[in-house]
Amino acid sequence: MSIEIQRFSRQLEFIREIDKVKSIFRQTPLMDKSRKENDAEHSWHLAAMVMILAEYAPEGTDLHRVTKMVLIHDLVEIDAGDAYLFDAAANVGKEEREQEAADRIFGILPEDTGREVMELWHEFEERETNEAKFATLMDRFQPFLHNISTEGISWLEHGISRSQVLSRMKPAVEAFPLFWDFLTSSVDSAVEKGWLKPS
Amino acid sequence: MSIEIQRFSRQLEFIREIDKVKSIFRQTPLMDKSRKENDAEHSWHLAAMVMILAEYAPEGTDLHRVTKMVLIHDLVEIDAGDAYLFDAAANVGKEEREQEAADRIFGILPEDTGREVMELWHEFEERETNEAKFATLMDRFQPFLHNISTEGISWLEHGISRSQVLSRMKPAVEAFPLFWDFLTSSVDSAVEKGWLKPS
Repeated sequence: MSIEIQRFSRQLEFIREIDKVKSIFRQTPLMDKSRKENDAEHSWHLAAMVMILAEYAPEGTDLHRVTKMVLIHDLVEIDAGDAYLFDAAANVGKEEREQEAADRIFGILPEDTGREVMELWHEFEERETNEAKFATLMDRFQPFLHNISTEGISWLEHGISRSQVLSRMKPAVEAFPLFWDFLTSSVDSAVEKGWLKPS
Repeated sequence: MSIEIQRFSRQLEFIREIDKVKSIFRQTPLMDKSRKENDAEHSWHLAAMVMILAEYAPEGTDLHRVTKMVLIHDLVEIDAGDAYLFDAAANVGKEEREQEAADRIFGILPEDTGREVMELWHEFEERETNEAKFATLMDRFQPFLHNISTEGISWLEHGISRSQVLSRMKPAVEAFPLFWDFLTSSVDSAVEKGWLKPS
């Protein structure tokens, strides 16, 4: 097998492997409440949001890079599973499990592409660059939008409180005033409607 | 409501609206054959493939633009539905139905963003630019890869033949030799295994 075909084979193997994220379900319900969404759908939605909400990214943000980040940010869940944002226990040891998953999954790719994907994933996880911060805003805001559009069924199912939502959202959302204002007023309204515990 | 908030509201309405593509199912099975995939999952997979297979795009191709195209290419199916590639009847009148869908759905967005998405969708449909051609390659190749990885269950279900696959794939794939060689040899093998009719 030529080097060119070997390389193509690894790329195709990776494309087959990542199909598995279509079967990793999150806590977020679809907007029509018919079922919960999976990681592939969630990642697509974030990437579409990056297009639609691009104007709110800080000047100079590389939106192509943001898009790539959100497309690959959940691939490690193929091995490590989805840890619900508000489930402290499920988040213990997450970092190690996800690094092992990244090593295996990104390792399927040709070395250069695998390294690029690993760097994007680390950058996303570290949340320091403008690109990672904007990607994280999308990642936090999308399920929030689903929650307030579905009468908080996922919050009610897990008994989530106002303070839990605000404390988990604040680091990612606060720097984006339009999003933060929308979020805090929606949280107030969700408490009034009984979708979130008031404390 | 300030102009800024009105604009943000339209963007959020669009983000809610496009959630519906998660419920539009295609003929393509998941790699594990557990069920068919939907448009959101398909679009995510194409966008990830653009990253992984970027090196095969003609020099100078704007890969960010390709990624945006594949992210939005199926939104019109929210109103127009998915027409199976090999179903001639389902493809009659498709263009008009999809244009009406595009007018309604992209019209939810602020005018400037709506126009950008409309242009991307038209460019994709016209398949003339390098960007649209590479996006179309992804759109044809991904379900093909699913078919040959799932013992051709979708081909068998619809009684698809070798010549149907080759004639539908050729215009999109032929210009990419590595993909076309892989496709033709996979088709031969699929005929031998009884997954595709030989004629």
